[in-house]
Amino acid sequence: MTDYFNARILLDPKEVPKQWVNILPDLPTPMTPLINPMDGKPAPFELAAAIFPKECVIQEVSQEPTIPIPKELREIYARSHRPTPLHRAYGLEKELGVEGEEIKIFYKNESVSPTGSHKPNTALAQAYYAKADGINELVTETGAGQWGSGLSYGCSLFNITCTVYMVRASFLQKPGRKILMRSYDGEVHASPSRFTESGRSYYENDPDHPGSLGIAISEAVEHSLRSEKIRYSLGSVVNFVCLHQTVVGQETQQQLKKAGIDQPDIVIGCMGGGSNFSGMAIPFARDKIRGDAPDIQIIGVEPRACPSVCKGKYTWDYGDSAKKAPILKMHTLGHNFIPSPIHAGGLRYHGIAPIVSNLYNNGVIEATMHHQLEVIEAGMLFAKAEGILPAPETNHAVKEAMNQALKAKEKNEKKTIVFNFSGHGYFDLLAYKEYMTGELENFELSEEKIQKSINDADMPQIDESAF
Amino acid sequence: MTDYFNARILLDPKEVPKQWVNILPDLPTPMTPLINPMDGKPAPFELAAAIFPKECVIQEVSQEPTIPIPKELREIYARSHRPTPLHRAYGLEKELGVEGEEIKIFYKNESVSPTGSHKPNTALAQAYYAKADGINELVTETGAGQWGSGLSYGCSLFNITCTVYMVRASFLQKPGRKILMRSYDGEVHASPSRFTESGRSYYENDPDHPGSLGIAISEAVEHSLRSEKIRYSLGSVVNFVCLHQTVVGQETQQQLKKAGIDQPDIVIGCMGGGSNFSGMAIPFARDKIRGDAPDIQIIGVEPRACPSVCKGKYTWDYGDSAKKAPILKMHTLGHNFIPSPIHAGGLRYHGIAPIVSNLYNNGVIEATMHHQLEVIEAGMLFAKAEGILPAPETNHAVKEAMNQALKAKEKNEKKTIVFNFSGHGYFDLLAYKEYMTGELENFELSEEKIQKSINDADMPQIDESAF
Repeated sequence: MTDYFNARILLDPKEVPKQWVNILPDLPTPMTPLINPMDGKPAPFELAAAIFPKECVIQEVSQEPTIPIPKELREIYARSHRPTPLHRAYGLEKELGVEGEEIKIFYKNESVSPTGSHKPNTALAQAYYAKADGINELVTETGAGQWGSGLSYGCSLFNITCTVYMVRASFLQKPGRKILMRSYDGEVHASPSRFTESGRSYYENDPDHPGSLGIAISEAVEHSLRSEKIRYSLGSVVNFVCLHQTVVGQETQQQLKKAGIDQPDIVIGCMGGGSNFSGMAIPFARDKIRGDAPDIQIIGVEPRACPSVCKGKYTWDYGDSAKKAPILKMHTLGHNFIPSPIHAGGLRYHGIAPIVSNLYNNGVIEATMHHQLEVIEAGMLFAKAEGILPAPETNHAVKEAMNQALKAKEKNEKKTIVFNFSGHGYFDLLAYKEYMTGELENFELSEEKIQKSINDADMPQIDESAF
Repeated sequence: MTDYFNARILLDPKEVPKQWVNILPDLPTPMTPLINPMDGKPAPFELAAAIFPKECVIQEVSQEPTIPIPKELREIYARSHRPTPLHRAYGLEKELGVEGEEIKIFYKNESVSPTGSHKPNTALAQAYYAKADGINELVTETGAGQWGSGLSYGCSLFNITCTVYMVRASFLQKPGRKILMRSYDGEVHASPSRFTESGRSYYENDPDHPGSLGIAISEAVEHSLRSEKIRYSLGSVVNFVCLHQTVVGQETQQQLKKAGIDQPDIVIGCMGGGSNFSGMAIPFARDKIRGDAPDIQIIGVEPRACPSVCKGKYTWDYGDSAKKAPILKMHTLGHNFIPSPIHAGGLRYHGIAPIVSNLYNNGVIEATMHHQLEVIEAGMLFAKAEGILPAPETNHAVKEAMNQALKAKEKNEKKTIVFNFSGHGYFDLLAYKEYMTGELENFELSEEKIQKSINDADMPQIDESAF
């Protein structure tokens, strides 16, 4: 008989992971370095440390398979919200007609953090390391606002100023996020803004410019170079952010073991810059690479309006439109690509974490994509079945988990599916309202537009033989 | 040394209380009955059971000191979000300058429920009992929207239709709540509406009428009498709702024991209709009445714009403006009292739970009140210190906990303070925005206005010798 008291699998605060999982030494092919956009060469430590907190720069290239989480930071994770619950989605299983023990769906509930998403996992770490370095301001960009809220929260805990450049489309769509950031004393500017050179050109051409993560990154990087006491903070893409997120996958592994499951069959996360996906996927990917779980299927889900991995080119590209952020080797739609204004603002990035690209190229993970209407519809069903309204980004994972469950049922297969429930949608209600009133639309992205964006991108030429 | 890993005290889902605490047999003076507004006599079982689910009517007058929670309902509590965490407010203590082990502040985090407040505790129970009775629709009113969301959620879990009359002031202030309710398939009408006789007179006079909980109750009760398959659902005030909420106080007691605290010194909750306050207070009040914790101080906190207990009259009054809901003996500002449009919409009720009135009259609990500006300011401080932005209602409890901690420090007293963190403010961001922009104001309520409202109220004459 079903024991519903086991539907939410909890860990004790003392079980917050003691270390992060660094996938770099286990990657099947070597990781490419961050490249300095000024000279096209690997960024030296001193340069990177002028942009990011020192310890993060060390973590970015570390070859240690695990990196200890400082005790003070573990305590803050524990006080804040970690470990997060893992839920058996009994309600969703019933709704899909896959009840029973053949097909099991689990979701890792990162929405219970104070700001409602997985973002504090790295925000708290970066604020901690910045404080340790004597930094007094962190500056960043944000798409949907989840990252900006997370960092504002982190900075408020460590008494550091937080400045956020928020993509204007989201700034207008999500006034609540702005207020939340300000309640943590975060400074929020709509991007493109008139406060930086990078933003001013766009802003003066069109003060209503919807913006993009690429432009907002340029503004934040520029701002961070104004003083030695300011550092830039990234919420995704780079290695150390993916590293910090691995608390998610590690806890999930512990919790699945508590539920009697040694390894799941399918692991799913949505992908924008790739951080929540990596956080869930990396511990499983390491087991897969090492041969401990060779058959595990790991799926990243992109929006059809911005499918960097599914449709992009694997090449060196700028991290941002103004070519101020590091150059990365990754799947990209071109650094000038402006995605359609889907509600999943956190997935509107032209590239993807180099770690994700590497895992994809080596066949460790796969990628798929969904349209806006179908993912919001999946979110509505999830809300009725499980009670929690997902963030538009998260719905990409919800939709794929549903698809995989139905596929398994059709094929009469036993499957354990686990996905990262990266955030709730309580600040994204407009997306649901538009769905309910029939105003929500899909954005078709033609192959031609993708090819043109990539071809016109003026990708940097990097001499790989030099490193 | 402080062990921050104990900052969040969790219970296992299996530790969801097995029973509710019924305070009725322990009350120092007998509880007054619900009176039928049609004839001024105690409502017979059949009549009450035509309005509410049968089991709730039995619970309303039960003299059993504990009432078992059905296993299926306990499972649903556990799957949904219970037990909720109890947090030691280390961040707030530091902010207030009361760090150390002399003054301890704890808060019971009811904001982790899917709809963000304590309301599902009774919503799930009522939907469960309604389903058991073969009812296919529950209808209710909501102020701030917390109750409407909670009931919509509960009904969606049991496949029952949910209809909500929402006080227009909140309907306009909190569009997010509406969308959330609709995402659970709830039907939401602004009240006063044109769909009921009770609403129509107000609506036709003024289609922009801000409404009140009293009017919305009238509309919901009228709607519920349309069919035998519809029942009315209340989110506060009556005994069985206070009963269902006692999971909160019981879990808190277990959690405090885990923290090595036998009894706290001060227990705090905000009061509108009185349900979240009762849920926290009742288990402690029973211990106090029985002499197990005679010195415990239990404080209910009201808004200065609607101070039923602090300034109202203890008398028989109608539960709603249209005199359709049961008559109750309680502290009341008069059933026609329209409170100023404070953001704490859930506290805008003219009366209070008879249980609370009884406990207050017998000196078991005390009451105090605060102004809108000071409570929102307290919420801002709480957000920065603890990360969670409180609901405007909840801020009344936050403010009082802060005051008590500072008072203890001044007097050099040892105090353990615990309060019910009844909900988060992520749907109430307008209140914070107005605070930040200096638009937020206090509403002064003169003694004259209170006296006039009570004197003009045309209170029902009830012959108490008849029961």
